[in-house]
Amino acid sequence: MTQFFGHNYIGGQRSATGTVKLQSVDARTGEGLPYDFYQATAQEVDAAAKAAAAAYPAYRALSAQRRAQFLEALADELDALDDEFVALVCRETALPAARIQGERSRTSSQMRLFANVLRRGDFYGARIDQALPDRQPMPRPDLRQYRIGLGPVAVFGASNFPLAFSTAGGDTASALAAGCPVVFKAHSGHMATAERVADAIMRAAHTTGMPAGVFNMIFGAGVGEALVKHPAIQAVGFTGSLKGGRALCDMAAARPQPIPVFAEMSSINPVIVLPQALHARAEAVARDLVASVLQGCGQFCTNPGLVIGIRSPLFTAFVQQVAQLIGDQPAQTMLNAGTLSSYGNGLRRLLGHPGIEHLAGSPQAGNQAQPQLFKADASLLIDGDSVLQEEVFGPTTVLVEVADQAQLRAALNGLKGQLTATIIGEPGDLRQFSELTPLLEQKVGRILLNGYPTGVEVCDAMVHGGPFPATSDARGTSVGTLAIDRFLRPVCFQNYPDSLLPDALKNANPLRIQRLVDGLPSRDPL
Amino acid sequence: MTQFFGHNYIGGQRSATGTVKLQSVDARTGEGLPYDFYQATAQEVDAAAKAAAAAYPAYRALSAQRRAQFLEALADELDALDDEFVALVCRETALPAARIQGERSRTSSQMRLFANVLRRGDFYGARIDQALPDRQPMPRPDLRQYRIGLGPVAVFGASNFPLAFSTAGGDTASALAAGCPVVFKAHSGHMATAERVADAIMRAAHTTGMPAGVFNMIFGAGVGEALVKHPAIQAVGFTGSLKGGRALCDMAAARPQPIPVFAEMSSINPVIVLPQALHARAEAVARDLVASVLQGCGQFCTNPGLVIGIRSPLFTAFVQQVAQLIGDQPAQTMLNAGTLSSYGNGLRRLLGHPGIEHLAGSPQAGNQAQPQLFKADASLLIDGDSVLQEEVFGPTTVLVEVADQAQLRAALNGLKGQLTATIIGEPGDLRQFSELTPLLEQKVGRILLNGYPTGVEVCDAMVHGGPFPATSDARGTSVGTLAIDRFLRPVCFQNYPDSLLPDALKNANPLRIQRLVDGLPSRDPL
Repeated sequence: MTQFFGHNYIGGQRSATGTVKLQSVDARTGEGLPYDFYQATAQEVDAAAKAAAAAYPAYRALSAQRRAQFLEALADELDALDDEFVALVCRETALPAARIQGERSRTSSQMRLFANVLRRGDFYGARIDQALPDRQPMPRPDLRQYRIGLGPVAVFGASNFPLAFSTAGGDTASALAAGCPVVFKAHSGHMATAERVADAIMRAAHTTGMPAGVFNMIFGAGVGEALVKHPAIQAVGFTGSLKGGRALCDMAAARPQPIPVFAEMSSINPVIVLPQALHARAEAVARDLVASVLQGCGQFCTNPGLVIGIRSPLFTAFVQQVAQLIGDQPAQTMLNAGTLSSYGNGLRRLLGHPGIEHLAGSPQAGNQAQPQLFKADASLLIDGDSVLQEEVFGPTTVLVEVADQAQLRAALNGLKGQLTATIIGEPGDLRQFSELTPLLEQKVGRILLNGYPTGVEVCDAMVHGGPFPATSDARGTSVGTLAIDRFLRPVCFQNYPDSLLPDALKNANPLRIQRLVDGLPSRDPL
Repeated sequence: MTQFFGHNYIGGQRSATGTVKLQSVDARTGEGLPYDFYQATAQEVDAAAKAAAAAYPAYRALSAQRRAQFLEALADELDALDDEFVALVCRETALPAARIQGERSRTSSQMRLFANVLRRGDFYGARIDQALPDRQPMPRPDLRQYRIGLGPVAVFGASNFPLAFSTAGGDTASALAAGCPVVFKAHSGHMATAERVADAIMRAAHTTGMPAGVFNMIFGAGVGEALVKHPAIQAVGFTGSLKGGRALCDMAAARPQPIPVFAEMSSINPVIVLPQALHARAEAVARDLVASVLQGCGQFCTNPGLVIGIRSPLFTAFVQQVAQLIGDQPAQTMLNAGTLSSYGNGLRRLLGHPGIEHLAGSPQAGNQAQPQLFKADASLLIDGDSVLQEEVFGPTTVLVEVADQAQLRAALNGLKGQLTATIIGEPGDLRQFSELTPLLEQKVGRILLNGYPTGVEVCDAMVHGGPFPATSDARGTSVGTLAIDRFLRPVCFQNYPDSLLPDALKNANPLRIQRLVDGLPSRDPL
């Protein structure tokens, strides 16, 4: 068995100067794993942020090609993490091996996708307005713009994706691609996993000659606050709870120098089941919907937490089908005790609300999560009752029956911001309910038709974002290549000689990237 | 003489239900102008935000072509504002007629530039990843992304650009281009000007059939707070003081739903004068620099407030030249009494600091601003003393002499974020001081070589932004076409039939825009 050190990583070195030790636990048994992790001291948090700041000038000065090589080497290192690693992740998270294998390959593909973005060069946002010396009444100087990384980024790993939204996950990948060194705050739910992945990052950084401090990792409860408040940190990426995300946003906004936070937080991901779809395929919809609700023990940001249909005998039958399917499902082990406890609290909130009826599910007890189904009065949505706006993270969903098309609109208007909304409908439904798309566009980051929101493709067109409280800034995404934009800012050069310009803006266009030249896209040299 | 009503504009209607009346004043004499303006009541602020929200679905649904026609009609209306209008603006701001004529044409050109952006279509950020039904282990669904406007935007006009950064200025232009209705808070320094420009906007909106509420305007002191806190408002654009901008940022961050604020606030715009340039052309540099410092009574966001040189007999002579030129300049009238009072306070702060020496300028007194020159110890920069980090808005600048190249670096490292930095240097200087460009890139939004920062070209490549406190978000700009990005957010469609997709994402590419299709830029239909 491989050894674990449990050390923080600061400026390319291991560091364990503190006395507080943390233990990782077996998610199934609750039993402590035989490795200690050293909570970062205040000095270590400071040193990690400073190491990232020290690495920034050298790291951002590397060519995009060099950064791409780093990300690709890291992808290879991730792919090489073996069965023993997979077993470790499973042990810390109670997620099945097939899921972790899939997530490993998703995480390495994500690195390669950002390497591709770096080679493609559109991330530079290169724009050139050439001088117009004869323009009247005033000449125009030569002006050229490209984008650079903001500086060191603090990344907070999520519990539910120990690889894809964690140590070497999407926030880290997009920050590193942008030229921003990272200080990663490891999630307490999978610290051994984090150490293994951090080792992989260190190997890739070493092999490709990256500056020390390009990636740093700290362990510990409460160390995040000091990190977000550290003057060297210039942006934050976070995936987790509304409460946690909002707290980080508030801290970041209250700094002497406020910094941007992209926090992906809370979404109930409404699914709207339209009448003709129920007529054509109620059984398949019920089955697929329940599979999406229960997948991974409901521990997805895009888990469908709300299902809306229009009152009809067909919808009543559909509700019964869903109730039966949910009632038949076994309990599952959640990521950790905290998640299970939050799930229990969320269920109690639903059970205790007079406008909500419990339709299926064994009483929640013991150390596993029981799948549950609820039904809520449409008025709760229409009046914006907070009980339906809060995500209950786990294998449960709430059905809402609306009276008619007008009430459907009213109910959807009552929703806060979401990561996704899904429409299940036949062509006739889509004609009849054509107002849904523009309405949902105002509420969500991604609209799906006849699919299920769990499963977030990593590609150029993906948006894993949306209006508050789904995220803290609807302009960003934490999945897909647009995620890099969160960590870039434009810089303009006026009247600069060609030799002093960055390659992306030189006349010869040595990177052969597309640029906006005098208002027209072009790959030509000037 | 044309009549002024002094009414707020709400949902396409005039409104004056309040009892508090405000008066505009002649900036030269301080005499009240014979028009009253009605401070918006709390109900009117609410109604204005709701009118913008009501206009949003219809306005954002208009084609980019229709929105471009609106902006162009507005540009024509601005161009048609006559000499009487110019005289009015001059009276309210004490700015010269030629400047206002130039600003009028800059403001209309800005509208036309955004119309061009709308026609070009790159603002959509269209991305298409086509379905891969046979992919293993999982098929990929069809995913398409474009960008839509965030929703109603609150815009706060600046005092110093009564046209270009005000009622129909850059923030309004970029928000309207993005598909966001605007609620404009008129600056108290030019309310009659604002009414005339708002009339022009209303005419253009009417002519081109825009929804009522696409543009709203409110008058009053203190109404901005209610506006920023209004739940219908989804973003804020502001140009003004650090104190005012920071207060709006804090309010926006503390809302139940936090919203993004782009506040352009405080910049001292360092100018670095290098040795060989002094050797080659000290006299011209002194003359051009002083002209930039005094232009428009120093009331530019990009006014050079700090001039840094390396100790030498040449630099000593240069300082004397600058002192003589500044000492010879007449006093000028500022925008309003508040600006003059702030200038006086800023000067007292400099005069009262033991590390700062007064080199030139008559004692500040009376109702005009006296040009002033100061010299500060390099240690104030190196140690980050706040006295040099705060903009003194008006016709003054501070010289700093550093001992050598190393101290120059240290001094520049001590700077906070800036809109601009300027290097005055000969080719030999640029070779010797090659570290300056990467260092300044980390501090500013725009680096100029052998030019002066006053004068901000409106074009694709301009960045009028920069790290805090220059702005509240270094990722944005308030001048140039990239300004539209502040008010856009991405939306993704998964598995949508062609007929239900927005035109920007349809297979046939009916808008003929460039899109990123399966990772490659393309204008082809699919």
